[in-house]
Amino acid sequence: MSKQLRVGMIGYGFMARTHSNAHNRLNNFFPVEHKIVLKACTGLEADKVSQFAATWGYERTEDDWRKIVAADDIDIIDICTPNNTHAEIAIAAAEAGKMVFCEKPLARTVAEAQTMVDAVEKAGVPNMVSFNYRRVPAITLAKQMIDAGRIGRPFHFRANFLQDWTISPDVPQGGDALWRLDVKAAGSGVTGDLLAHNIDVAMWLNGPITRVTAKTETFVKERMHNITGKMEPVGIDDACLFICEFANGSLGLFESTRYARGHKALKTFEMNGENGSLAFNLEEMEYLDFFEYKGTEADTRGWRRIHVTNGEHPYMNRYWVPGLVIGYEHSFLNALADFVAGVESGVPAEPTFRTGLQTQKVCEAVLKSGRTGAWEETGVEL
Amino acid sequence: MSKQLRVGMIGYGFMARTHSNAHNRLNNFFPVEHKIVLKACTGLEADKVSQFAATWGYERTEDDWRKIVAADDIDIIDICTPNNTHAEIAIAAAEAGKMVFCEKPLARTVAEAQTMVDAVEKAGVPNMVSFNYRRVPAITLAKQMIDAGRIGRPFHFRANFLQDWTISPDVPQGGDALWRLDVKAAGSGVTGDLLAHNIDVAMWLNGPITRVTAKTETFVKERMHNITGKMEPVGIDDACLFICEFANGSLGLFESTRYARGHKALKTFEMNGENGSLAFNLEEMEYLDFFEYKGTEADTRGWRRIHVTNGEHPYMNRYWVPGLVIGYEHSFLNALADFVAGVESGVPAEPTFRTGLQTQKVCEAVLKSGRTGAWEETGVEL
Amino acid sequence: MSKQLRVGMIGYGFMARTHSNAHNRLNNFFPVEHKIVLKACTGLEADKVSQFAATWGYERTEDDWRKIVAADDIDIIDICTPNNTHAEIAIAAAEAGKMVFCEKPLARTVAEAQTMVDAVEKAGVPNMVSFNYRRVPAITLAKQMIDAGRIGRPFHFRANFLQDWTISPDVPQGGDALWRLDVKAAGSGVTGDLLAHNIDVAMWLNGPITRVTAKTETFVKERMHNITGKMEPVGIDDACLFICEFANGSLGLFESTRYARGHKALKTFEMNGENGSLAFNLEEMEYLDFFEYKGTEADTRGWRRIHVTNGEHPYMNRYWVPGLVIGYEHSFLNALADFVAGVESGVPAEPTFRTGLQTQKVCEAVLKSGRTGAWEETGVEL
Amino acid sequence: MSKQLRVGMIGYGFMARTHSNAHNRLNNFFPVEHKIVLKACTGLEADKVSQFAATWGYERTEDDWRKIVAADDIDIIDICTPNNTHAEIAIAAAEAGKMVFCEKPLARTVAEAQTMVDAVEKAGVPNMVSFNYRRVPAITLAKQMIDAGRIGRPFHFRANFLQDWTISPDVPQGGDALWRLDVKAAGSGVTGDLLAHNIDVAMWLNGPITRVTAKTETFVKERMHNITGKMEPVGIDDACLFICEFANGSLGLFESTRYARGHKALKTFEMNGENGSLAFNLEEMEYLDFFEYKGTEADTRGWRRIHVTNGEHPYMNRYWVPGLVIGYEHSFLNALADFVAGVESGVPAEPTFRTGLQTQKVCEAVLKSGRTGAWEETGVEL
Repeated sequence: MSKQLRVGMIGYGFMARTHSNAHNRLNNFFPVEHKIVLKACTGLEADKVSQFAATWGYERTEDDWRKIVAADDIDIIDICTPNNTHAEIAIAAAEAGKMVFCEKPLARTVAEAQTMVDAVEKAGVPNMVSFNYRRVPAITLAKQMIDAGRIGRPFHFRANFLQDWTISPDVPQGGDALWRLDVKAAGSGVTGDLLAHNIDVAMWLNGPITRVTAKTETFVKERMHNITGKMEPVGIDDACLFICEFANGSLGLFESTRYARGHKALKTFEMNGENGSLAFNLEEMEYLDFFEYKGTEADTRGWRRIHVTNGEHPYMNRYWVPGLVIGYEHSFLNALADFVAGVESGVPAEPTFRTGLQTQKVCEAVLKSGRTGAWEETGVEL
Repeated sequence: MSKQLRVGMIGYGFMARTHSNAHNRLNNFFPVEHKIVLKACTGLEADKVSQFAATWGYERTEDDWRKIVAADDIDIIDICTPNNTHAEIAIAAAEAGKMVFCEKPLARTVAEAQTMVDAVEKAGVPNMVSFNYRRVPAITLAKQMIDAGRIGRPFHFRANFLQDWTISPDVPQGGDALWRLDVKAAGSGVTGDLLAHNIDVAMWLNGPITRVTAKTETFVKERMHNITGKMEPVGIDDACLFICEFANGSLGLFESTRYARGHKALKTFEMNGENGSLAFNLEEMEYLDFFEYKGTEADTRGWRRIHVTNGEHPYMNRYWVPGLVIGYEHSFLNALADFVAGVESGVPAEPTFRTGLQTQKVCEAVLKSGRTGAWEETGVEL
Repeated sequence: MSKQLRVGMIGYGFMARTHSNAHNRLNNFFPVEHKIVLKACTGLEADKVSQFAATWGYERTEDDWRKIVAADDIDIIDICTPNNTHAEIAIAAAEAGKMVFCEKPLARTVAEAQTMVDAVEKAGVPNMVSFNYRRVPAITLAKQMIDAGRIGRPFHFRANFLQDWTISPDVPQGGDALWRLDVKAAGSGVTGDLLAHNIDVAMWLNGPITRVTAKTETFVKERMHNITGKMEPVGIDDACLFICEFANGSLGLFESTRYARGHKALKTFEMNGENGSLAFNLEEMEYLDFFEYKGTEADTRGWRRIHVTNGEHPYMNRYWVPGLVIGYEHSFLNALADFVAGVESGVPAEPTFRTGLQTQKVCEAVLKSGRTGAWEETGVEL
Repeated sequence: MSKQLRVGMIGYGFMARTHSNAHNRLNNFFPVEHKIVLKACTGLEADKVSQFAATWGYERTEDDWRKIVAADDIDIIDICTPNNTHAEIAIAAAEAGKMVFCEKPLARTVAEAQTMVDAVEKAGVPNMVSFNYRRVPAITLAKQMIDAGRIGRPFHFRANFLQDWTISPDVPQGGDALWRLDVKAAGSGVTGDLLAHNIDVAMWLNGPITRVTAKTETFVKERMHNITGKMEPVGIDDACLFICEFANGSLGLFESTRYARGHKALKTFEMNGENGSLAFNLEEMEYLDFFEYKGTEADTRGWRRIHVTNGEHPYMNRYWVPGLVIGYEHSFLNALADFVAGVESGVPAEPTFRTGLQTQKVCEAVLKSGRTGAWEETGVEL
């Protein structure tokens, strides 16, 4: 294991933690050829950068992300900063010949995302957008089952991502984790932060979304801004609901909100096909629910809870023994393992920036429909 | 119990069974003043009418519903025929001074439903449309809790009604129970047959729906028609999805289909308010799920499964002992008990025809939006 | 339907209600040849008898059960009185040549139960003990699946019946429904009242129980006696736990209590075999859970929730449409239908008194082991 | 963080993986003063030791555990070997003044375990037995709630641990992970391997178990022995069921088996008290179910699913954000964090060897009762 992949981390927030944890654990669990080395990290506030580096074991800190991008001893730039900085960093990293691993959503707009795709493709560098939920074993298993024809012709796909943490009007916007409520930093609200995950999984499982009609809402119109220190209008969508058509003729229904009391991270999907159905819920992510129509007797048919913890399930042979669950963080570890395997094999792991761009297109069409009230084309190419 | 309410039943299908069962059992369970008497029944085919009368104990049969409407010894006309006949029978019954109990949806169109409302109101006769699910104890409990302020300001309401019985293109349309697939008899597909139930409950719990945008789909374009004996175009909506606004500012999301493999009668709703949330699923109708935010400690909050089978729960003091469940059919019995109590008290039980008309308006706006692709106003008055 | 089965009901309590409801509905739902007629009823207090007769439609009342047993116009004696009266009434009924339908447990002791078996067998009259839960469709389906070899060689059977209604020491004993807490009337506590149900189902599904070791407990030592008006020692078992061996080599684990806070009628069982497992819970009795090992791929195996509401499920073709649930009371209706079908076919329906005697033997061995602390033989003959 | 705790690992099997993972991650998640250093490891086969060291980052390997116990640069001896070696290693480690962290069960017998307790107490070294499930956040929360009086006087405690991996008679015994089926290495079967976990949690939550009556069974009498290469009698218990009394007057019911088809690691408990009940299931370990009687209105009472993933829940402020689950492995990490905190504070973390000895006493009484068929005293001192 003499070969190394040296990571330069940009950011020290929640996502930087999940990525650093994955980096630290890769070689404990996956038999890749490279050894991950946490080389350097950076961020806005020096003391937080130092503490982050100490906690996760980064060898050094830098006071500017440009220094990390320029450094000779860095192979991968891992972008865990607010959405409004993704494009600049990613493009600079690509131009410096670095591999780029970027948190989702890829960018704030399709135009911005397109510049990132162009940059990594021109540079020919490995790139991935961190739609980590594809690597939840239950969701990967769903993909395998769909591809194997277990549910047949699809009729319906529905998904949601429900939270409740912004119900109080006293929650401020801007700064730290709260940049997600600041439209300038985030680009959008639940659409980019939450629905992007649902859309990525939906198109992975069920193909392109072609048309959408949407409703967006901002329940709390003004919030204190942590950076300006003033009450300011809220520019993000607090909730977003949309109906869509998939290219394969099936219908989609999506909903996300941060005003669904009692739900903290209720990210679910269900897909109904001619021969079977599949359902998933992130809050109990160890299960995949499956209804099989073909090949089962009428009187013993039923929804089957697959406890996705056996060695024959995706990724699970890397962990413990049957029945013992892994958690949220392992989706990042699994994704990183696939990314590194892609680097080693030369077959890039999905979702690349180009794939992430398609999700961006759907998000943008959804937000546009929220304004126009009309059906909008997505222009997705998959 | 010398007073009687003498029933004239029009129809002998599935709904006629559920209503007759309720009639037969009312005096075993509810302490109303009147005794229900099954006086006469009628329907299209004489031998089926005879068998139906024998099974359920109707005293006589008639060969024309007009004879029942005209009979002196009938107090209530119970309409359990296909949707295209509701208006004519109900109007005749009202003009004959009879009480009218009508299966849902009230009619095929708003215009048709309006004539029925006009007729019963002009005649001043007790009337009810059989949106039976309001009287599932768990749903009635939800209503009580919402009215008591247990969930506070509403943000979201979502509901669906998923079935899978028409996936096969070999299912014919027309005749017997299959009139539901024949647009001429039914008026619409899942919108009138299934979503009407969701809409009635939604507006009972959360107030008027004001605007909608919808997607309707017919997956199987042609089916054998049982009456004509020919393959004919399918005119109904196989699936219908819509987003809506409620007058109180909350958002709604509705879906119904008969192509959701694995679901036979998955009728659910969930409502999220500032202080709590409620959820229900007809396939396990003994439960109401409740998340309470106010008044519970942060570390022991959770979704609570209320097993709605105690004496203090709505209607349950009429039945068995705590823990023992009642079923689907009891929703009709409870509704009938309330209807009779309304007759006895002079305070009409809901939903009256006028209330049923409001649901019809939403259905019509949904179907229109399915054609126009635009947001449509419902014109609901509640 | 000119043939009649004329019922004489002894008792007017909870069980008399469930039986009368079944009698009243049989001919609405099941195509038997006989018509059930509610001929006469009796009980201890005349006014309650009158009210009961009016509610359920009994043609007349009697002031002594002996008059009903002696009446020429009665075919079936239905015994719904406290356990200490079963034997005397049943024996008299048999000697009068009447069919006997008796609530469970058959009696207070094996000796008492044996006299009842002897009487009905000597008289050659149809007889049944009302272990109604065998006729919950999900449990009948379990029986069918086990008999078809779907779970293979059995290793484990576990069952419980948990309630919480006697936790308060202020609940009195004796009189009305509370005779269940009075050892003189009931014979035992949870063992005869609740575990008897579990044992009957267990031996139906898994064969004879041969040996037991048990723990019984009375948490509240004294309770006010409603009839004597004094605090008196509690003679019943509040809780009973036992381990057992089945004749087929599998192991059993049983528990019942009225001190399990949060459970009102949690009656469950689970059976594990070499090729599969089955589980049931009365509080959501519409489901049977099934794990199938053979014939399913390793990565999609899981516990399957069978929603036992389709026409192909036991008894369900008599009721509504797929997805719509029936309730607790229908288990009595199904049992009555089988009893009458047995009378008509000449093939007696189970469980007969002789079968009920076997359950009595297990109960008696369990109670004995609770006193001795040793393993006890049951002497079951099945 | 200049202080170090240098670990010497004995073993490289499944448990050595879970412990090494915890060691590696401690300083990423918990703010302890010491830095964990993986210094050395050893085991029976040199190549496996080398691979284990490389995977987990141990600085060196040794060919004999005695060298690790004797090494000056080791602070903690972590024992992850089969049960028959625990005592010798632990005693040597204590005599060498090392801290001892030992996998459960502490030993094969009470006598053996007692020598270990004596050794660590004589040496005055920090010691812990790895009953990791106490540190599942949902179980720790249960402990906090019980201690806060949320469920009141206890009546019942029931627990099980069900698996299905030894149903096939083709599974051999002995060697690698299969030493668990070899009575010489393991001491017992499910009693020591699985029920010991249930017993530790039960006595932590509900106090001492004083008396037991048990049934043990070995379904497969002979298995191929991987080391001897011959069919040999199976000496372990395949299944164990026991009833017990707790010192506080409540009753216990325990069951474990490796023949429960469909269950891979179904470790559950439920505890019923006067004022409430609690239930847990390891296969969906993110939940704690709670029924609260006091302080809730009768008509909205129900079992509450607490999704134990918020910052206010035990240990969860160290991980991600509300709604996102951790997994099985984190129970070891949490335990290690408490152990180190105990070393740093001078207040030893539980369960110490002395506490583990009490569980050993219950196991031994259970196994004895399995042979005698009589109630046996446990002699637990807590």
